Amino acid sequence: MKACLFEAKEKFVISDIKKPVPQKDEVLIRVKAAGICGTDIHILKGEYFSDFPLVAGHEFSGEVVEVGEEVTQFQPGDRVTADPNIFCDKCYFCKINKNNHCLDSHVIGVTQNGAFAEYVAVSEKGVFHIPDHLSYSEAALAEPLACVVYGVRRSGIKPGEKVLIFGAGAIGLLLMSLLKISGASQVIMVDISQKKLDFAKKMGASEVILNNAEGEKKLKAIAPFGFELVADATGSPRVMERELQFVEPDGTFLVFGVAPIGDMMKVEPYDIFRRDIHIVGSYAVKKTMQYSINLLASGKIQVKNLISSTYSLEDFERGIQDFYHDPDHMKIQIIP
Amino acid sequence: MKACLFEAKEKFVISDIKKPVPQKDEVLIRVKAAGICGTDIHILKGEYFSDFPLVAGHEFSGEVVEVGEEVTQFQPGDRVTADPNIFCDKCYFCKINKNNHCLDSHVIGVTQNGAFAEYVAVSEKGVFHIPDHLSYSEAALAEPLACVVYGVRRSGIKPGEKVLIFGAGAIGLLLMSLLKISGASQVIMVDISQKKLDFAKKMGASEVILNNAEGEKKLKAIAPFGFELVADATGSPRVMERELQFVEPDGTFLVFGVAPIGDMMKVEPYDIFRRDIHIVGSYAVKKTMQYSINLLASGKIQVKNLISSTYSLEDFERGIQDFYHDPDHMKIQIIP
Amino acid sequence: MKACLFEAKEKFVISDIKKPVPQKDEVLIRVKAAGICGTDIHILKGEYFSDFPLVAGHEFSGEVVEVGEEVTQFQPGDRVTADPNIFCDKCYFCKINKNNHCLDSHVIGVTQNGAFAEYVAVSEKGVFHIPDHLSYSEAALAEPLACVVYGVRRSGIKPGEKVLIFGAGAIGLLLMSLLKISGASQVIMVDISQKKLDFAKKMGASEVILNNAEGEKKLKAIAPFGFELVADATGSPRVMERELQFVEPDGTFLVFGVAPIGDMMKVEPYDIFRRDIHIVGSYAVKKTMQYSINLLASGKIQVKNLISSTYSLEDFERGIQDFYHDPDHMKIQIIP
Amino acid sequence: MKACLFEAKEKFVISDIKKPVPQKDEVLIRVKAAGICGTDIHILKGEYFSDFPLVAGHEFSGEVVEVGEEVTQFQPGDRVTADPNIFCDKCYFCKINKNNHCLDSHVIGVTQNGAFAEYVAVSEKGVFHIPDHLSYSEAALAEPLACVVYGVRRSGIKPGEKVLIFGAGAIGLLLMSLLKISGASQVIMVDISQKKLDFAKKMGASEVILNNAEGEKKLKAIAPFGFELVADATGSPRVMERELQFVEPDGTFLVFGVAPIGDMMKVEPYDIFRRDIHIVGSYAVKKTMQYSINLLASGKIQVKNLISSTYSLEDFERGIQDFYHDPDHMKIQIIP
Ligand SMILES: NC(=O)c1ccc[n+]([C@@H]2O[C@H](COP(=O)([O-])OP(=O)(O)OC[C@H]3O[C@@H](n4cnc5c(N)ncnc54)[C@H](OP(=O)(O)O)[C@@H]3O)[C@@H](O)[C@H]2O)c1
Ligand SMILES: NC(=O)c1ccc[n+]([C@@H]2O[C@H](COP(=O)([O-])OP(=O)(O)OC[C@H]3O[C@@H](n4cnc5c(N)ncnc54)[C@H](OP(=O)(O)O)[C@@H]3O)[C@@H](O)[C@H]2O)c1
Ligand SMILES: NC(=O)c1ccc[n+]([C@@H]2O[C@H](COP(=O)([O-])OP(=O)(O)OC[C@H]3O[C@@H](n4cnc5c(N)ncnc54)[C@H](OP(=O)(O)O)[C@@H]3O)[C@@H](O)[C@H]2O)c1
Ligand SMILES: NC(=O)c1ccc[n+]([C@@H]2O[C@H](COP(=O)([O-])OP(=O)(O)OC[C@H]3O[C@@H](n4cnc5c(N)ncnc54)[C@H](OP(=O)(O)O)[C@@H]3O)[C@@H](O)[C@H]2O)c1
Ligand SMILES: [Zn+2]
Ligand SMILES: [Zn+2]
Ligand SMILES: [Zn+2]
Ligand SMILES: [Zn+2]
Repeated sequence: MKACLFEAKEKFVISDIKKPVPQKDEVLIRVKAAGICGTDIHILKGEYFSDFPLVAGHEFSGEVVEVGEEVTQFQPGDRVTADPNIFCDKCYFCKINKNNHCLDSHVIGVTQNGAFAEYVAVSEKGVFHIPDHLSYSEAALAEPLACVVYGVRRSGIKPGEKVLIFGAGAIGLLLMSLLKISGASQVIMVDISQKKLDFAKKMGASEVILNNAEGEKKLKAIAPFGFELVADATGSPRVMERELQFVEPDGTFLVFGVAPIGDMMKVEPYDIFRRDIHIVGSYAVKKTMQYSINLLASGKIQVKNLISSTYSLEDFERGIQDFYHDPDHMKIQIIP
Repeated sequence: MKACLFEAKEKFVISDIKKPVPQKDEVLIRVKAAGICGTDIHILKGEYFSDFPLVAGHEFSGEVVEVGEEVTQFQPGDRVTADPNIFCDKCYFCKINKNNHCLDSHVIGVTQNGAFAEYVAVSEKGVFHIPDHLSYSEAALAEPLACVVYGVRRSGIKPGEKVLIFGAGAIGLLLMSLLKISGASQVIMVDISQKKLDFAKKMGASEVILNNAEGEKKLKAIAPFGFELVADATGSPRVMERELQFVEPDGTFLVFGVAPIGDMMKVEPYDIFRRDIHIVGSYAVKKTMQYSINLLASGKIQVKNLISSTYSLEDFERGIQDFYHDPDHMKIQIIP
Repeated sequence: MKACLFEAKEKFVISDIKKPVPQKDEVLIRVKAAGICGTDIHILKGEYFSDFPLVAGHEFSGEVVEVGEEVTQFQPGDRVTADPNIFCDKCYFCKINKNNHCLDSHVIGVTQNGAFAEYVAVSEKGVFHIPDHLSYSEAALAEPLACVVYGVRRSGIKPGEKVLIFGAGAIGLLLMSLLKISGASQVIMVDISQKKLDFAKKMGASEVILNNAEGEKKLKAIAPFGFELVADATGSPRVMERELQFVEPDGTFLVFGVAPIGDMMKVEPYDIFRRDIHIVGSYAVKKTMQYSINLLASGKIQVKNLISSTYSLEDFERGIQDFYHDPDHMKIQIIP
Repeated sequence: MKACLFEAKEKFVISDIKKPVPQKDEVLIRVKAAGICGTDIHILKGEYFSDFPLVAGHEFSGEVVEVGEEVTQFQPGDRVTADPNIFCDKCYFCKINKNNHCLDSHVIGVTQNGAFAEYVAVSEKGVFHIPDHLSYSEAALAEPLACVVYGVRRSGIKPGEKVLIFGAGAIGLLLMSLLKISGASQVIMVDISQKKLDFAKKMGASEVILNNAEGEKKLKAIAPFGFELVADATGSPRVMERELQFVEPDGTFLVFGVAPIGDMMKVEPYDIFRRDIHIVGSYAVKKTMQYSINLLASGKIQVKNLISSTYSLEDFERGIQDFYHDPDHMKIQIIP
């Protein structure tokens, strides 16, 4: 089959490799859409723990073409998407209901071949049905949306609360889309690109604000005591340091953006105490895929507009170029 | 001032009574809109603990015209609405953060004169500012919406869950409106009136279903394992008994409808155990008024369509007639 | 190996059967202690969905003697206990983090041979290490305690709240033991047997009260507004109906006792609404085994006194007789 | 009456001042015991927002001797303690159920005269009955314990979890005492004073560990994946920075200690994300006094041993000296 093979640091090639044979608990999927994610880039740059050669790609959807002998929930022809994290279900964390901290997980597209290929094999444990009316392109966003569902659950948002999000990239927009329908009375987006803010506004932000001194003043005027929820989707510790001031007493700061390893931020413990602040991390997906699919299937979360470009497998290079050079790209998808 | 005075059981009169003089902690409000609620009818019928004569009316908005000497947060000209429950802040329940179970609360329109009059006096503790762009008619729905906010908080709804509501009256529709933007991937409404269901659909229900054997089959088909949240807004124990079967394991049944006192429903404790069911009551408002106002102010909850008729104080009788005889009435408002 | 084989309704025999051979993901355990539970009796009486012949027994501990080739966490010589519920990890419920509602679970001692035998084979997913200083007899209570841990988590108990438990059998006493160290300022036990109450008092109940009219008066005097948490461990719908009155507004009624299927209880929906009541079911174990073991290992929960008699496998009959005829039996254990 | 009057920075005098006259909503209390707290020292040093002259003292108990005309819950002879924070009940925060962030609170002993005197007047809203069998000295610890109850509520501790506390001063020991009976399977204390650790051990710590490199190794050995709850009771940002590493994934770091204003700590946002960390502040008391009293009254929390010395009002100076110079002092009380 055709696949995009990451062969070494910064080196990938479109080649013909052996089509995977599904293990007895696995489902073989004909990939129909696969998104490029920051993690794929980290892998390509050799900044991740993955080994070469690897077929990357962990946000995808497709059609089941073959199933292992022990598979009971799927059959050829089924339209599906997947949670790429296959947990061991027997380590310390899996047994205390903290699967996303599994000590021995297998991750499709990270520790084993993924979806930048014509076919991908996935343990049945990670596969999910999608309804007929949901396109494959939309369904390929179920995984990032499942991360966002996990984060919003952890945020503790309650009906009528005010939300502020920093970072209007694809993830910030997904956060906005979900928070808007998770009780928030308003969701304000902050970014440094006016173009991204214009897009955020079109996607439904209550208000958009450029991140500068002027912008901070506006935020103070809008919510003098702060916002019940402030979420970071920039991944920048420097930005996070400034975000904390906008949290209302007894409110939450959601660390959703992924900062560089080792990069520290300064927080004032007195302030955390005095204002009863919650700082909450949100790591990946913990059994929230089905809820993500529910939201896509019912049309409550609209992701079509988030797909900024699509390429064939042969044009993988162009997808990477968009990622690097188009500052306004959102989700870039490969249609193998 | 002009007021509608409930003089005795089933007897009210529009008369001229003394305009209230605000106590030192009170705000005097020129009433601009006041909704008729089932409780008002219970009072009128002598089925409630209120004493006659009484000016009823506890869902209202208006303009501040005078303030007591100790009032610090309001001044004449302010546009406001109110939480009619004025808590004692010193009983057992108030001191353990269960104010809505206050042992000595004063309720505007129930234990003291209310809003079916030109003026009403309210302790500053219960008064809330409303923004200029929110009409008085809409703001008069802040109190019932605050009940709904409290109920939705208690429901524990999480992003992507499926919701089923029985009863498409004004309250059922408010529940739907809020649950739709509180994480639900879909909100299905059930009623016995097709006309109400049509209205519910127009207001945004994902699906509407007539309550009969056929309807129950449809619900089973839509969600074979049930709904994470089933909410009652009918107040009928007979209906509630049937609603429980639609709760998904580990899901919640929200007892929002107010059943007749002493009317029992049968539940199967084995089933509650086996399916990990939560049955949760929701009583009135507990410090959720501000969140209700946030939702109205931002336009996230639209209540204009819920106001089915408005009358002047002189026409109070017609409001009551609508309540009794128009099966499709929603919120009826008095504009004194 | 020797085993107690349930051959048909009300018929069991101690016989020699084939020692189980561990599957590749299984651990073979030399059983050291196995408790008799109400479920075992239901199976024996043919009132359960199990098929005959069956080796029952699902509360146990023992020593690992052999492991399947894929087992990674255990080796011969390890001291262990087990969660008898082996989940499929691929059905609808497993994938939404509701494993205890798994649609295809295998239960040791219920759907496959269990621990009333010299050896039992268990999927590694269900096996847990126990520390050296914890006796096998104590460790065999980890499973029922894990149910109780799940129930207490669901109860929402907060520091300083008052607790009332109906039923001072083994489970009621475990609930008491855990609630006493889960924030409760006091835990009161109610039963109909004074002897059981005396034992409950010795085990640490704050107060014990006979269940009769006099007893109810005492409870009203102790907590005029009720208890934040009332838990049933009797399994009787008639008793449950009376328990609800003792719940404080905004408090919780925990349905922990298992009532007969189809036996209904009457509740007043008006009361649930008016007093903001939570009724919460608790079904078995959901990833709480490790916490149960933590509590046993640290000595925070003492179960030695709960073991009222121990018998060899040959004397299984005597264990059953104790269960039927000794009204004051607590946990009866088989030491195969 | 006799009182200890803080006249200016670092200057106090025992003098005769006018006995307070209770306002109509106030209760006049004959002080029986009043603890010295770090806040009193800050006030004395002029490091707090209080104005001189002031009678400090906000942790106290006593007997009601007189009540204002509107007081309904108390009468002379009643034994009481108090929550010194008297909330306005009408500001933004009070109306959204965040009273501890009240914008206009009055604090006994901080913004108005307190309990280092023979008499103190307190709004009925802040006064609580104590049972006869609870000594005044013990009851004077209800307020700090109520802070701890609030913190433990916020910590989200669940049955069977492991707890680690840094700082074995009076507050650390109260945290330990409550966490021990709030579900923890073990509570380990860390301090830099072996003497304090010995005391902590005697008070019931599961284990005590000196804070040094060796100690950190021990902690890693005890809980290789960390503790579900790590609580700071040192108030030192430098120490807090090291504490975070001991939090188990998806666990909580409770910022209970009060750090110096402006003193920053460094945290790694990547780590917060990757390990799903919760950092939670806990500010003072929010309607938890009654629960604190419940715990003292039932004997579940024992505070007698925490009172390291008691002095008469005349000997206030000696109390201060103990505070400054006895490194092992716990709670120092004035018995006016
Ligand atoms: N928690 C999880 O499970 C999870 C899952 C998926 C992704 N993530 C993380 O979520 C973050 C966002 O992902 P993404 O795909 O949306 O990335 P992205 O496209 O790079 O979006 C980040 C956005 O933040 C903006 N930004 C940069 N500096 C800013 C500032 N000072 N103020 C306001 N905005 C600023 C960027 O603007 P410019 O583009 O103009 O620089 C960009 O629009 C990443 O860190 C990603 O790793 C987390
Ligand atoms: N919890 C709280 O704090 C709170 C606050 C406010 C109100 N409430 C309660 O909420 C409930 C609803 O209030 P509302 O003003 O919306 O009352 P409503 O207008 O009477 O609405 C009840 C609706 O339920 C429908 N219904 C009756 N039987 C039904 C059945 N078998 N299946 C499905 N639907 C059925 C009714 O249909 P028909 O009209 O055709 O009969 C009606 O549309 C009331 O019980 C009210 O007291 C509670
Ligand atoms: N939720 C779960 O996951 C779970 C797990 C395990 C067990 N359970 C259930 O928990 C319940 C208790 O189990 P167990 O082993 O402790 O059973 P048990 O030994 O039969 O205990 C029940 C106790 O309730 C007492 N009782 C009966 N009627 C009463 C009344 N009117 N008032 C007060 N007490 C009364 C009984 O007294 P007498 O003995 O004198 O009649 C007995 O002491 C059972 O229903 C069991 O199935 C639930
Ligand atoms: N959140 C709230 O609402 C609230 C309420 C009351 C109090 N507090 C705060 O709680 C904190 C504790 O109060 P406290 O009265 O118990 O104070 P404390 O007596 O000063 O106790 C602090 C303890 O931490 C120890 N410590 C210092 N450095 C340490 C280190 N590196 N490692 C481990 N332990 C270390 C101290 O040891 P040495 O004495 O040997 O230095 C002392 O035993 C204070 O910051 C106080 O302001 C908070
Ligand atoms: Zn694992
Ligand atoms: Zn009250
Ligand atoms: Zn399953
Ligand atoms: Zn206030």
